[in-house]
Amino acid sequence: MGNTLKERNLTMLMDFYELSMANGYFENGMRDKIAWFDMFFRHVPDDGGFAIMAGIRQLVDYFENLSFTETDLALLKKKHMSDDFLNYLRHFSFACDVWAIPEGTPIFPGEPIVTVRGPVIQAQLVETMVLLTINHQSLIATKANRIKRAADGRTVMEFGSRRAQGYDGAIYGARAAYIGGVDATACTQSECDYFVPAVGTMAHSWVQLFGDELEAFCAYARQYPDACTLLVDTYNVLKSGVPNAIEAFRREVLPRGFRPAGIRIDSGDITYLSKKARKMLDEAGFPDCKIVASNSLDEIIIRDMLIQGAQIDSFGVGERLITAASAPVFGGVYKIVAVEEDGVPVPRIKLSENVTKITTPCAKKVYRLFDKETNKAIADLITLFDETIDESQPYELFDPVYTWKRKKIENFTAKPLLVKMFDAGKKIYEIPEISESRQYCFEQVETLWDEVKRFENPHKYYVDLSQKLWDEKTRLLDEYSHKGQ
Amino acid sequence: MGNTLKERNLTMLMDFYELSMANGYFENGMRDKIAWFDMFFRHVPDDGGFAIMAGIRQLVDYFENLSFTETDLALLKKKHMSDDFLNYLRHFSFACDVWAIPEGTPIFPGEPIVTVRGPVIQAQLVETMVLLTINHQSLIATKANRIKRAADGRTVMEFGSRRAQGYDGAIYGARAAYIGGVDATACTQSECDYFVPAVGTMAHSWVQLFGDELEAFCAYARQYPDACTLLVDTYNVLKSGVPNAIEAFRREVLPRGFRPAGIRIDSGDITYLSKKARKMLDEAGFPDCKIVASNSLDEIIIRDMLIQGAQIDSFGVGERLITAASAPVFGGVYKIVAVEEDGVPVPRIKLSENVTKITTPCAKKVYRLFDKETNKAIADLITLFDETIDESQPYELFDPVYTWKRKKIENFTAKPLLVKMFDAGKKIYEIPEISESRQYCFEQVETLWDEVKRFENPHKYYVDLSQKLWDEKTRLLDEYSHKGQ
Repeated sequence: MGNTLKERNLTMLMDFYELSMANGYFENGMRDKIAWFDMFFRHVPDDGGFAIMAGIRQLVDYFENLSFTETDLALLKKKHMSDDFLNYLRHFSFACDVWAIPEGTPIFPGEPIVTVRGPVIQAQLVETMVLLTINHQSLIATKANRIKRAADGRTVMEFGSRRAQGYDGAIYGARAAYIGGVDATACTQSECDYFVPAVGTMAHSWVQLFGDELEAFCAYARQYPDACTLLVDTYNVLKSGVPNAIEAFRREVLPRGFRPAGIRIDSGDITYLSKKARKMLDEAGFPDCKIVASNSLDEIIIRDMLIQGAQIDSFGVGERLITAASAPVFGGVYKIVAVEEDGVPVPRIKLSENVTKITTPCAKKVYRLFDKETNKAIADLITLFDETIDESQPYELFDPVYTWKRKKIENFTAKPLLVKMFDAGKKIYEIPEISESRQYCFEQVETLWDEVKRFENPHKYYVDLSQKLWDEKTRLLDEYSHKGQ
Repeated sequence: MGNTLKERNLTMLMDFYELSMANGYFENGMRDKIAWFDMFFRHVPDDGGFAIMAGIRQLVDYFENLSFTETDLALLKKKHMSDDFLNYLRHFSFACDVWAIPEGTPIFPGEPIVTVRGPVIQAQLVETMVLLTINHQSLIATKANRIKRAADGRTVMEFGSRRAQGYDGAIYGARAAYIGGVDATACTQSECDYFVPAVGTMAHSWVQLFGDELEAFCAYARQYPDACTLLVDTYNVLKSGVPNAIEAFRREVLPRGFRPAGIRIDSGDITYLSKKARKMLDEAGFPDCKIVASNSLDEIIIRDMLIQGAQIDSFGVGERLITAASAPVFGGVYKIVAVEEDGVPVPRIKLSENVTKITTPCAKKVYRLFDKETNKAIADLITLFDETIDESQPYELFDPVYTWKRKKIENFTAKPLLVKMFDAGKKIYEIPEISESRQYCFEQVETLWDEVKRFENPHKYYVDLSQKLWDEKTRLLDEYSHKGQ
């Protein structure tokens, strides 16, 4: 009994078409056909300048534990899969190579963030779980990073479990939010399973149960004198909540040798209330008593509150973080980019009436280019799989659409972003502790220029193709677009 | 190993404050204090006229299996919970009464949809899971119902797993969508676990793997001649996809004695393309070949496409359904409404600077009043727990804010909406099969006037308070608002 993906059988969490196709590939003698698939996304949620990669731990757990039970097979039998194929699934052994960008890394539209190479049946069957895992956690890590940056060094706590989209939405959402930068969660399960610090004090019901607010506050302060944060808006923040909190701190916290921890405001105009409350707490001799705010916050409201001088030390952010409410979809896709013939990857492309849905073909690598002087990221460069970048020579970048826009860079380092995590089905990647991924995220976001970090209308970070890859894509576009004529 | 809540330990999926408070109640001698909590919501997502209740099966599973492991207790010990309290949790035995509105029922803002009565520690500890379970599934069931109604009798399939917010978002999302009215899902796991029919055919990768589109279509048609739906937009829908599909149907489907099932269009202007494709299929002698559309659909786009004469028989709806993207939060809350003194529930109220956050106190019942002549729902009526409605007498309804707005009704039936599901911790409710809940949903939505079902600016359905409940709320508001002065 447990919640980690090692303890749950989510094998059948696949779109049924993956099974129809896999069965079809098998029956068409393509069992050993090797294909390359890339996961990439087309658009940063909230029109932001970058996203944050997350979900790798769960993806690795999934690959490691992928197998079909007899119950699974019985269902597929009912759905007319061939016996030979079911037997193949019965003895399923994951044999793919997997590369992915580590958790906490800023990622950009158009670049491969996960690459799976292996028997087409296998690489196809994992599509849903690759996308679902990375889409969800990257969505939340990205939103969390925005909110943490808006709080400008203040504490941010994830409070959204009750409004999450399902249990995993809460648990893995809290995990992803922590990688993205929040400091703690209300979700106790996420501390159990993933070491995200869980925090929490009281709800309005505590005050209502006692009926009398002062009595309720005193009871809580006696119980938790060393960590006493009181919720002050059950009846009236300034007329009753804050005065009663001050009284309770004096009666029950100070005599026990502690200082008051904080008050929390959960309704009303929190900017106004926080300024008034700050003044009352200061005058009462509690300048060190923190003010915590919650109630439908997000990065835009937090930024505006701080601009208006809100006196808040800590933000509890609920539904708008755990569902990324303003842009609740991370649109990662998983596309075939090459099929091997005699061991050589032959590129595949998908055209589309929608130009943005055209894929970039070929087995690929992604490099992030850093300026050696500033340590800032200059651009990401997607190359063919076997290309290398000579850091000692100037390198000419160019815009893949407006190809006359060119820029020569020198004195740079080229860091490969995709890390090989599975080799022929065997895990070869050591997953960092979550606190390391969180720290890595913080450091990597620091390498981006402020212009890329703007919430609205950020500078577009360059994701370019190498000349060889661009040539290959152009050739295929030309070839396939003639097919339909 | 499994995914149903009976097989997973989600006990610690609670906001940590529930544990701080529970420990505090325990230490303050309130272990046996009996409290009443209501879950209700304040606003229908998408400004709709009503929501659809869902999530009861999982909530029941959760209550039935609620227990703490030694690992859970060890974490709480580290977090300074008292040994006596931990011992209480060690021998935790759920003892609450639970009433809830059955799955598939249309529900409205302000009315209790779940009521929990029991030892305050227990009733408090379940807060997160009550909200999370019902909020998530009701969100998706509500969205699904809108989309199914927009499709106006056509088939709707849930295709969103890859963009869901976590694994449960996909699995339970598909379940809730089915209750709300969709016909099938792509999520195979949801068929395994919850009997939601799983369907699926091919992705672009099938076509790309073969390279040649006609060859790919023929291979698929040979494999699945009895259910051959071909994806026609990998290269060019009208120039290549549809002609190749027609050719493949002729070569591989007809000779095997079957009729072509369908084509699917996943990009481009689907309204335009579907009309052209319909014409081509008809002229080829396949007027029975269905056209399936997918690609960022929702109820508004589907409605507009149909108004413009799109020739679509079946809609595959992805991210905008599985995340309810246009309004991704169902804002249910869980509030204490009464505390028993000597076995009698004494009402509790929460004031707020935000008028909409004021709660309705008291142990309550909810009735839906139906017109005997039309069988349409007239209004919902919230009463005190011990009130009964005499259907043989005229009943005067009044607006709880504008109390001069009054209406006398007669010839009605009053159906209690809250069903008792647990009695002193024991399950006494038989959960219907999911297909029954889906049918019930369909029938109950039929009892609403069309005006309430408008997507935009629907008629506001009446949710009124009985005179006795209104009097009690007014008395408490008056009493508590003076406390802060």
